Amino acid sequence: MKENALYIQNSLSRKKEKFIPIVPGKVGMYVCGPTVYSDVHLGNVRTFISFDLMYRYLLHLGYNVRYVRNITDVGHLVDDADEGEDKISKKARIENLEPMEIVQKYTNGFHQVMVLFNTLNPDIEPTATGHIIEQMEMIKQILDNGFAYEVNGSVYFDVEKYSQKYHYGMLSGRKIDELIAYSRELEGQGDKRNPTDFALWKKADKTHIMKWPSPWGVGFPGWHLECSVMSTKYLGETFDIHGGGMDLKFPHHECEIAQSTAADGVEPVKYWIHTNMLTVNGRKMAKSEGNGFTPEQLIAGDHPLLEKGYNPMAVRFFMLQSHYSSTLDFSNQALQAAEKGYQRLMQAFELIPNLPVSENSDFDFETFESNLYQAMNDDFNSPILIAHLFDGAKYIQSVNNGLKKIDIETRDSLFKLFKEFIHDVLGFKTDSEKSNKALLNGLIGTVVEIRDRAKNNKDWETSDEIRKHLNELGIVLKDSREGTSWELK
Amino acid sequence: MKENALYIQNSLSRKKEKFIPIVPGKVGMYVCGPTVYSDVHLGNVRTFISFDLMYRYLLHLGYNVRYVRNITDVGHLVDDADEGEDKISKKARIENLEPMEIVQKYTNGFHQVMVLFNTLNPDIEPTATGHIIEQMEMIKQILDNGFAYEVNGSVYFDVEKYSQKYHYGMLSGRKIDELIAYSRELEGQGDKRNPTDFALWKKADKTHIMKWPSPWGVGFPGWHLECSVMSTKYLGETFDIHGGGMDLKFPHHECEIAQSTAADGVEPVKYWIHTNMLTVNGRKMAKSEGNGFTPEQLIAGDHPLLEKGYNPMAVRFFMLQSHYSSTLDFSNQALQAAEKGYQRLMQAFELIPNLPVSENSDFDFETFESNLYQAMNDDFNSPILIAHLFDGAKYIQSVNNGLKKIDIETRDSLFKLFKEFIHDVLGFKTDSEKSNKALLNGLIGTVVEIRDRAKNNKDWETSDEIRKHLNELGIVLKDSREGTSWELK
Repeated sequence: MKENALYIQNSLSRKKEKFIPIVPGKVGMYVCGPTVYSDVHLGNVRTFISFDLMYRYLLHLGYNVRYVRNITDVGHLVDDADEGEDKISKKARIENLEPMEIVQKYTNGFHQVMVLFNTLNPDIEPTATGHIIEQMEMIKQILDNGFAYEVNGSVYFDVEKYSQKYHYGMLSGRKIDELIAYSRELEGQGDKRNPTDFALWKKADKTHIMKWPSPWGVGFPGWHLECSVMSTKYLGETFDIHGGGMDLKFPHHECEIAQSTAADGVEPVKYWIHTNMLTVNGRKMAKSEGNGFTPEQLIAGDHPLLEKGYNPMAVRFFMLQSHYSSTLDFSNQALQAAEKGYQRLMQAFELIPNLPVSENSDFDFETFESNLYQAMNDDFNSPILIAHLFDGAKYIQSVNNGLKKIDIETRDSLFKLFKEFIHDVLGFKTDSEKSNKALLNGLIGTVVEIRDRAKNNKDWETSDEIRKHLNELGIVLKDSREGTSWELK
Repeated sequence: MKENALYIQNSLSRKKEKFIPIVPGKVGMYVCGPTVYSDVHLGNVRTFISFDLMYRYLLHLGYNVRYVRNITDVGHLVDDADEGEDKISKKARIENLEPMEIVQKYTNGFHQVMVLFNTLNPDIEPTATGHIIEQMEMIKQILDNGFAYEVNGSVYFDVEKYSQKYHYGMLSGRKIDELIAYSRELEGQGDKRNPTDFALWKKADKTHIMKWPSPWGVGFPGWHLECSVMSTKYLGETFDIHGGGMDLKFPHHECEIAQSTAADGVEPVKYWIHTNMLTVNGRKMAKSEGNGFTPEQLIAGDHPLLEKGYNPMAVRFFMLQSHYSSTLDFSNQALQAAEKGYQRLMQAFELIPNLPVSENSDFDFETFESNLYQAMNDDFNSPILIAHLFDGAKYIQSVNNGLKKIDIETRDSLFKLFKEFIHDVLGFKTDSEKSNKALLNGLIGTVVEIRDRAKNNKDWETSDEIRKHLNELGIVLKDSREGTSWELK
């Protein structure tokens, strides 16, 4: 099965293309990571889970993958301008706002969210501030090649000059003439020769906190530059896969192509992959819309729009039940349906090792296995993969109910295959702590019911015994009108 | 109690000094972090747990602390020299060894170990590669001030010149004349004017992988420089506390003082704190000695020297039962004693909320509270703190056994105080997953007992009800001669 070729929908060619890595057996993959100046957005989580699925499948196929996902930690914080420059410089360093303290807080938070959803760590997680020199080197290269110009301590990319030799707009399909006409109407030119030009290096004003000395004066790199620099530094001038959210296609990724091509003379990426958006009850998710709950709020059920908290694995399942290139709408109803589906799939998986076996089998294992690989080989089609796994789950239930037969070899192969796709490829894991909590709640409910029955029957011996046991375990029961709750002493 | 002053043994003055922060209410603390080219060493873990205790206590005292702990990620990996430069440059980037891949692996591993031992994240965790420009800026400053010289693409710190104006050796107590005489005999001079001089910037040879362009040519920063740069960048030219393992005192910390003073003209650190070594069965821990087990091996019991695996909290307790400035010897016997002590302390803590209360109390709470603060205020003396907590634990047991009395206010104050010192300051936490398992076992035992009682009483309704509930929860009971065990379906 594995020999069947993987096909990827390439945003650059707008075609589904056979995946052929540049170096046989090895894959270089770069994904635009989070900006760590605020909590990670649920839409970003979907993006990172989508690329986690691709990374996992490439690993499963036996590729040696170098997966690079950056951290954008160059921010645009400014110090309190009212205090004036002198006052600021007189303050002790420790009294000032320190951007890296903010960066650390949100980087830690981002990592915790990634652990929650069981995504694999990238092989390299480079930061923009860790590659300022490399960014200056690329700017020099672009200047030397004649595709950028310096004005008043800033350096801009010359889009018109670039367009004379290369194709600006090849990824987004935008036409340079229209872009120029459109942006001329919209904004003033400032230092730029043309409004479509973009900054490679920006002069920092006095209030800007994050800044570095450069051949062009003190400043900071333009937003698009870091990804051109870090992707080619770790993966080579041309590498296999570049991914990111659809909203990054223009201008960010278009500018990335232009920068790398202007510096190195070659197109940087063979396969561009873009993930689609997440909506909530049909509307774009945004803080201003009041529907911008964080991943943690989603798990805890701690937001007015959420009827309850959701298991992170059920959320992951919900996201993977939709193809990465489709929009995905979040609603309590859809999530609760996903929760049930996830449980059904996992229950079937857990049944396999103890299924009753027969001499022979009604199950066409080869077709089943082939279906799974065909789904994933068709542009990582996880919803089709999951649909096939449900067919398998149905068969498993039938065997369990004595309606169908399975032999021992098929049962073992089926378990191995389910395990590979459920654990390794789809990245679902059983949460032992959470399932222990659910069991605890269930057991205490049972004990309370027996105690109530004993009390009703005036069986004081039993009810006393129960009280004594719970007390020893440190469990305190609280009876109220709504029923009996419990807590630990 | 909190008003009593904190005293710190300052390695610089070799005296116990009253701690007075530079900016009232705020503390800047820098600790030398790990080198991420191999697994973190258990001796490092001790160092980081020691500084975690100090960070926690400073926070507990109400200070606003900025805690910076760096990651040393500039390594000295070289590419395979046999292949020659041409061959290497012909290989695709993705086929080459990538130091940042190694850095990422061991940084992730280090963070996992820190979580295991419940240390708090530092506020900023800067990397050496993220501060190459700042390192070059400090070199320029030192050159401008006349305390360094450039030779063949490298820059060296001029220790003799520095010694004419400042005191090289002030921290380690080493005498410059002896150092010079000693090192002249030991090594050739190479590019250095004097053998005591040390590199600020080293020219990279062709095989060196991690290198950056600089005003002095392509190279990499000297080992000592990053800490001078990152500590002063985030905490100011002079800051409160600098910590690290004792083995870093010379040359690393001595050179740090020299670099920062040569650049800024002021001494960088008010209080230097050094932690002592860890030995195993009386011998220095080292891979070459065969006693170099990793923290993970210690927890899993997966090393010939370990009789069993140890709970990370018991290991933390073991480490904090010794003062940070004493050597600490690891043995199975000592660890098992610590495990018992830890359990005894935590049991007493858990008893407090349910202690029987009386009208009056025999307990001198004020003296007890004062003892705890006195211990920690005396150079973070955690072994004395723990000894006092054991006095409290003894009293708690006596109250529990009806031999002593406590009133409700004292009980509540005692619980709050224990919680603050055990959770917040000492950083012990109860393992929720583990305690859930224990609760589950206890509850199932209770249910089985009630079922057996019902069966004996021929109360089939109750025993059927229990069987039905357990079945719904997926719990399967297995009766055998040894009793009843359970497992999940």
